[in-house]
Amino acid sequence: MLTVLAGGVGAAKFLRGLIRSADPAALTIVVNTGDDDRFFGLAVSPDLDTVTYTLAGLAPLRRGWGRAADSFTCLEALGTLYDDAGWFKLGDKDLATHVYRTHRLAQGATLSTVTAELCRAHGVTTRVLPMSDRPVRTVVTTARERLSFQEYLIRRRARPDVLRVSYAGARRASPAPGVLAAIREARAVVIAPSNPFLSIGPILAVPGVRAALRRRRGPVVAISPLVGGRAVSGPLARLLRRFDYPASSVGIARCYRGLLDALVIDRADAHETDALARLGCRAIVTDTVLRTPARAARVARTVLAALGNGPS
Amino acid sequence: MLTVLAGGVGAAKFLRGLIRSADPAALTIVVNTGDDDRFFGLAVSPDLDTVTYTLAGLAPLRRGWGRAADSFTCLEALGTLYDDAGWFKLGDKDLATHVYRTHRLAQGATLSTVTAELCRAHGVTTRVLPMSDRPVRTVVTTARERLSFQEYLIRRRARPDVLRVSYAGARRASPAPGVLAAIREARAVVIAPSNPFLSIGPILAVPGVRAALRRRRGPVVAISPLVGGRAVSGPLARLLRRFDYPASSVGIARCYRGLLDALVIDRADAHETDALARLGCRAIVTDTVLRTPARAARVARTVLAALGNGPS
Repeated sequence: MLTVLAGGVGAAKFLRGLIRSADPAALTIVVNTGDDDRFFGLAVSPDLDTVTYTLAGLAPLRRGWGRAADSFTCLEALGTLYDDAGWFKLGDKDLATHVYRTHRLAQGATLSTVTAELCRAHGVTTRVLPMSDRPVRTVVTTARERLSFQEYLIRRRARPDVLRVSYAGARRASPAPGVLAAIREARAVVIAPSNPFLSIGPILAVPGVRAALRRRRGPVVAISPLVGGRAVSGPLARLLRRFDYPASSVGIARCYRGLLDALVIDRADAHETDALARLGCRAIVTDTVLRTPARAARVARTVLAALGNGPS
Repeated sequence: MLTVLAGGVGAAKFLRGLIRSADPAALTIVVNTGDDDRFFGLAVSPDLDTVTYTLAGLAPLRRGWGRAADSFTCLEALGTLYDDAGWFKLGDKDLATHVYRTHRLAQGATLSTVTAELCRAHGVTTRVLPMSDRPVRTVVTTARERLSFQEYLIRRRARPDVLRVSYAGARRASPAPGVLAAIREARAVVIAPSNPFLSIGPILAVPGVRAALRRRRGPVVAISPLVGGRAVSGPLARLLRRFDYPASSVGIARCYRGLLDALVIDRADAHETDALARLGCRAIVTDTVLRTPARAARVARTVLAALGNGPS
């Protein structure tokens, strides 16, 4: 049994490989909901959806969001009704998910329940858990404004200089049912190659999660989202420097200080092995570029082998 | 200035002609909301939408619902999530309207406000008013069950024998802002060729509407939805017989007893002119089949001429 802490795009690429190498039904994915937002009044959970669509085989291979082979007819029509529509892309198939989620939440269902229902409907046997059923919102403060995660990443294209990342509501939140047990009882916990500040940070900010990771006996392994000091996508390298971490595997290990037994790093970063060891973190060196599902599967097999789990 | 009381399909066909013959900005349409319902948690107002889409030139020419050239991608995806999706057709473009309405109503806007906003967004200069901002629901009681209007008409294809038609919530409702003034102050009020029980009945059931029509000085004219004793579409003839009205223009005039100055009837029903006169209702005989916009425009011109309004 493996538990994965996951954001969106990077995590999905890894999961696409993991489910080729491990029994999907033996996995629990704890997913960031700090990116959740309302668009047109609809409850959108981008990371939950990216993970669920990926596990269901409904995600596009290239794009990191939405459903494969989707159209944007409704969004275009919404553009006639809203001044400000269209910067957040919601496809017609994808919209069904948000309509359903909004409907069920309004009926009083929890986000956990809705997520389980969506998984069942799509034939996903992996357990997908939102980090919390309570709203936690990642807020990016720039010199000029406070932005929601989506506004920062999509609308401002992650360009503004970030002063602070905070997780509004985190202190009042609690882990969703099953989250702490999944962390406690998993043979290993894997932190997906997601942004430590924007994707994994919100999960760790939910009271009890960090402590549960610390108290585990079995290993906690992260996969570095950096290759040669560069993020595969997104503003991670800049954020690391901004918050006085080196833009390197060592920086990632420091972000997760006190939590990790091992960090999976790319061959391009093998020279950091000793520096990582000095932080008490074993380096697992492999090719971490997850460009194709086959490559992702190879990374997953390396991680499983390092954890003493052969491919199942 | 003309005020039209309107249901959905039949009314839309007439309006398509009327706006070719009269200044659209000089019209007020008071629309039935007894068919309103929630689908997937979305607030759907079928008659308001049919009227608005028709006035905006966005309605299909043949079909009596939804938007022209629409697709059903989202609805198909909803079919994976709901056991019971798909019997009420919601197109991708059409969905934008329901998403917007649901959002605005949740924000506390009234149905009147939302309707005005939708009209403005679509460039509709005609004033479109819901009959009420409060929910009124047309309930069709059959021997076996109580059905919402849509369940009766679409799901059961108007097949079950109807025991009763009632308007739940009507007594507690009040006319939407502008409705009574539009009835009071219009040079003429036209009752569109809609079903008297299922489409116009709910409007007349809103407290104050019937009295406002009775107290008017200027004419009230209905267009018969029957041709040769048959409804152009829908279960009207059966309903008339069920409720002990003749399935004829006389039956229609009796449904509106005490309200009408004149009834526009088809040439096929010209023989009823005297019987109508005995009910105090002048017959305006013309070709009432509204198959094309050009034919509908001819009917509208006849109505306007009979009212002493030439084409503008």
